[in-house]
Amino acid sequence: MRRIQLIIEYDGTNYAGWQRQENALAVQQVVEERLRKLIREPGIVLHGASRTDAGVHALGQSAHFDTESRIPAEKFSYALNTMLPPDVRIRLSRQVPETFHARFSTKGKRYRYLFHVHPHAGALNRLTHAHIIYPLDTQRMAREASALVGTHDFAAFAASGSVVKDTVRTIYRADVTRDGDEVKLIVEGNGFLYNMVRIIAGTLVGVGSGKLEPGAFARAIESGNRLDLGVTAPAHGLTLMEVFYNAEDLEC
Amino acid sequence: MRRIQLIIEYDGTNYAGWQRQENALAVQQVVEERLRKLIREPGIVLHGASRTDAGVHALGQSAHFDTESRIPAEKFSYALNTMLPPDVRIRLSRQVPETFHARFSTKGKRYRYLFHVHPHAGALNRLTHAHIIYPLDTQRMAREASALVGTHDFAAFAASGSVVKDTVRTIYRADVTRDGDEVKLIVEGNGFLYNMVRIIAGTLVGVGSGKLEPGAFARAIESGNRLDLGVTAPAHGLTLMEVFYNAEDLEC
Repeated sequence: MRRIQLIIEYDGTNYAGWQRQENALAVQQVVEERLRKLIREPGIVLHGASRTDAGVHALGQSAHFDTESRIPAEKFSYALNTMLPPDVRIRLSRQVPETFHARFSTKGKRYRYLFHVHPHAGALNRLTHAHIIYPLDTQRMAREASALVGTHDFAAFAASGSVVKDTVRTIYRADVTRDGDEVKLIVEGNGFLYNMVRIIAGTLVGVGSGKLEPGAFARAIESGNRLDLGVTAPAHGLTLMEVFYNAEDLEC
Repeated sequence: MRRIQLIIEYDGTNYAGWQRQENALAVQQVVEERLRKLIREPGIVLHGASRTDAGVHALGQSAHFDTESRIPAEKFSYALNTMLPPDVRIRLSRQVPETFHARFSTKGKRYRYLFHVHPHAGALNRLTHAHIIYPLDTQRMAREASALVGTHDFAAFAASGSVVKDTVRTIYRADVTRDGDEVKLIVEGNGFLYNMVRIIAGTLVGVGSGKLEPGAFARAIESGNRLDLGVTAPAHGLTLMEVFYNAEDLEC
């Protein structure tokens, strides 16, 4: 038995998220079905690092599966890419130790959230950027974002109905930059609560547009109250960029 | 009668290019049809600056039309955007002098060509980036591109069957830059021959991959021979970024 890791890129527009669903097509199912065709091991299961929501994209989702197949590990990417639809691509396949787990070995993740700031929606970027029609003060947003960095109790930053008990997370980086009509948020942390990045993005828009007072993140960290934050930004602006592991956990 | 200019953005993926066609849907037709519905002037014609090919995108196509309508000029963008499909957007509408012509007043254009350089195709960028599977020497490409700058006879740089007589053009800028897997070409000039930017892009890939000797552009300018250049790069990597005019030609 060998354990194989896949790095997966997808355009989430036409999928019900990563995780296999009853009545909708998920990315996990799309990749698993091709894997089963390729290696003819019916019980094969793909374990993903992040359960991205419907409409969320990935440039670096990470997943693993176990197989008895003798296909060289690095060939899985090429073989699967001939079978997959063009909106799902395997960027890399490699053998990892049997102790590696795509989800439980995770040390951190990087997410990107993109805004198109213009009176009119974009055409070319409509599937990857949330459209904001009013001007945003990017410097104010960048200052607000910096309050996230550090180890805090992010209880206020989770979608209601979330059942996670430990809501303490460490954020390593939270940068807001602007390039013409595009405003980009990059956040890196050791973990994120459900909808956390989209709530951060929505709050930053509130602060950048003047609807929310600066200091919202500090107040919400202190109060634990979801109402101290802004709305949840739409799914399609979000992309899972990379999942981090300790190098030694990946070494065969 | 007033003359109105539109700045138009489109995702060219699902269109047969800019120019109205017999048996396929062109962007010109899509916008003209909404204009006719909006202002009920059946003879209305939209004159575009650039006849972009099927699959080519635009962030800044320019076009004009004449109307007796009393709709304020800047409102056309908002009204049309409620009627247009999401892959075509009007970024700006404004009144221009009756002497302005979107095509004949043009002083220059800027184009962008994007490559995705990776062993595997991308998923998120598959509609805007040409996929190159082998490594590219970007510094070599940038040096080669700089040979385009200046006033030259670009006869070799036109698709065969092109009937333009004057093939002298001035290129102001030709930059190649890299950001991770993305290689970007930006070219600005006072005009471009048919397929010229795609031939430039294809030749740069040839030089960057080592298939073509550096100096291809200088040789082709000297010889006038299309065979001194590389292949025509695919349409979907190309975006018309901006059409330039003299400021006084736009002032009402």
